[in-house]
Amino acid sequence: MGFFIRSLVAQNSKHVWRAYSTAASDTTVKAMVYSSYGKPSEVLRWHTYPLPSLTDDTVHVRFLASPINPADVNQVQGAYPLKPAFEQLGDAKAAVGGNEGVAEVVATGKNVSSLKVGDQVVMARSGYGTWRTHAAGPPEDFQPLPQSTNTSVIQKATITVNPCTAYRMLKDFSPLKPGDYVIQNGGNSAVGQAVIQIAKAWGLKTVNVVRNRPEIDSLRQELMDLGATHVVTDEELGTHEMRSKMKGWFDGKPPLLGLNCVGGKSATEMARYLGHNGHYVTYGAMARAPLTLPASMLIFKNITFHGFWMTRWTDQNSADERLKMFEDLVGLMDKNQLREPRWAKVEWNEDAMKHAVDAGIQGFTQGKQVVFPTSS
Amino acid sequence: MGFFIRSLVAQNSKHVWRAYSTAASDTTVKAMVYSSYGKPSEVLRWHTYPLPSLTDDTVHVRFLASPINPADVNQVQGAYPLKPAFEQLGDAKAAVGGNEGVAEVVATGKNVSSLKVGDQVVMARSGYGTWRTHAAGPPEDFQPLPQSTNTSVIQKATITVNPCTAYRMLKDFSPLKPGDYVIQNGGNSAVGQAVIQIAKAWGLKTVNVVRNRPEIDSLRQELMDLGATHVVTDEELGTHEMRSKMKGWFDGKPPLLGLNCVGGKSATEMARYLGHNGHYVTYGAMARAPLTLPASMLIFKNITFHGFWMTRWTDQNSADERLKMFEDLVGLMDKNQLREPRWAKVEWNEDAMKHAVDAGIQGFTQGKQVVFPTSS
Repeated sequence: MGFFIRSLVAQNSKHVWRAYSTAASDTTVKAMVYSSYGKPSEVLRWHTYPLPSLTDDTVHVRFLASPINPADVNQVQGAYPLKPAFEQLGDAKAAVGGNEGVAEVVATGKNVSSLKVGDQVVMARSGYGTWRTHAAGPPEDFQPLPQSTNTSVIQKATITVNPCTAYRMLKDFSPLKPGDYVIQNGGNSAVGQAVIQIAKAWGLKTVNVVRNRPEIDSLRQELMDLGATHVVTDEELGTHEMRSKMKGWFDGKPPLLGLNCVGGKSATEMARYLGHNGHYVTYGAMARAPLTLPASMLIFKNITFHGFWMTRWTDQNSADERLKMFEDLVGLMDKNQLREPRWAKVEWNEDAMKHAVDAGIQGFTQGKQVVFPTSS
Repeated sequence: MGFFIRSLVAQNSKHVWRAYSTAASDTTVKAMVYSSYGKPSEVLRWHTYPLPSLTDDTVHVRFLASPINPADVNQVQGAYPLKPAFEQLGDAKAAVGGNEGVAEVVATGKNVSSLKVGDQVVMARSGYGTWRTHAAGPPEDFQPLPQSTNTSVIQKATITVNPCTAYRMLKDFSPLKPGDYVIQNGGNSAVGQAVIQIAKAWGLKTVNVVRNRPEIDSLRQELMDLGATHVVTDEELGTHEMRSKMKGWFDGKPPLLGLNCVGGKSATEMARYLGHNGHYVTYGAMARAPLTLPASMLIFKNITFHGFWMTRWTDQNSADERLKMFEDLVGLMDKNQLREPRWAKVEWNEDAMKHAVDAGIQGFTQGKQVVFPTSS
């Protein structure tokens, strides 16, 4: 939505103001924005601008919590295929950072029936810009979350990327039934932890590959507590011992679904454990190495290799389909079957935000980083 | 089907002979067999044994022509996942070489209604053993070819592997309509040439990648004569010039189907030309190098990577489905839209066969090698 500065707006009739939502309300938006791509601390900046006035057909929301996701960092760097448009925001042409978050509806135009004040909403599409205190727009820009009894604001703020990715990958690629095995790497990632828990709730068993590390025993315990069936290190993966161990676990029914967010050699090794006609879904490349596939895996074992990108799924599916997924996920959260991710608060100020985004992927190993844009 | 030697059979009642088809007819089968895996010229041998007598429920066929395919060579070497059982054939426990061929029904048991004398048949499954003069068995072992007006014995003998592979890959992975592009490597292979011709007949355009070679101009002309839209060398594939050339050819509609029988670096390069949501099918690995996939191709371009193996398709689909495909292919052959492959006759004797199979994949560049087992 275009936004014109106050002086220009004043030259137009009241009618025109409303039709184009260019009039300014009394609310000032604070946002972390960028006007060019680059190192986050160099291109990100604190920016304030007036919230457009409410019209008959728009709503006002205030943000409750917004995470900093790896994709957000890549987006600011210009290294992400989804590039938001730089729009006129007050006196600057810029994009608001962030893609995920939960907001509360604080005002609705009189023609709006799909949302009401107090509704908690997520963004209807990626690239909306969630590192800001407020936003104004048509109700179609937002999607209400289902009612919940026991779901935290952190869970709501982080529902659309990681839990949804885990949910779709477990549901859309291979028909699985209770007792079936799924194998994944990055078992300790945010998606990996959601996979473990959703699989457990659905009666599926998981083999979870993680990088070996000094504190492997406590990590193993942590993932077992979440519901992992087995935790295996990438170093064990290619060994003869592990092959015969897994053979025993699978008992003639090897996994038909593999989930890969790592890439490189151990991702190929993991694919070898899939059964004939299995599906292998790549949704990340943390090792920054490509996936190498022996032809026999494709031709004779008939493994199909897919990619998954949540953004594409959201773009290509209806709000109803998405709501069904939210209902299932919130249902699991309400029953404590899908727990709040580890998270750390990032202060809502320029320096803290710049530091957090700059730290980038490294910072995320401490858990999800979340800002509360309205709290200051 | 088990086969017992004449002396043992004589100890059984006539009823038992028939039930197990173990009685011997007056016909002597000549076959190229092997009893262990290894270098073809060392393990293959000429073997004769009596054809089992006709029973009420079996048929006799005589082979008209059988090709030597690359997979046959790998099978004798023990390097192919499909390993035929070593069966009792006269006084030897052995497997007959070959997987493809056309035979003529020469006798039918009185309970057999699905085949009649004079029918031309192919094998109902892979691994049957086609390098022999005769075979006996239930009618289900064979599948009659549709009537044709203009299809040579060579075309019939080589229909089940290469043309069927091309047909299925063009049909089963991506819904294509006339005018759409397909990109393939190994454009000069037997499957590649079938792809070019079937695609042409169906109104599809093809970009055909071939290895660069001194006689590239004549090869290009040969493939264009078959119906290729463009012929490109593997060396040109990664160049800036080719990228902008192809952009022009595709005019905003890049191919959604890629067919790969090569592997290695140029196969990855080829995948880059596919459009979003495309499908990439691997059915061979002539370069003996794995396929390397950047994660972005999977995640953001949503290319799906499949394998195709004709043997699996035949095992998993009905004879009716296969007949429908044969009818389409014979229809194209009758109209000269799918030509006889280049081929060379291999003499039906031990030395010539050993030499031809030993020469292996190299020999196939001269065209399909075909034996006529009944001609001597």
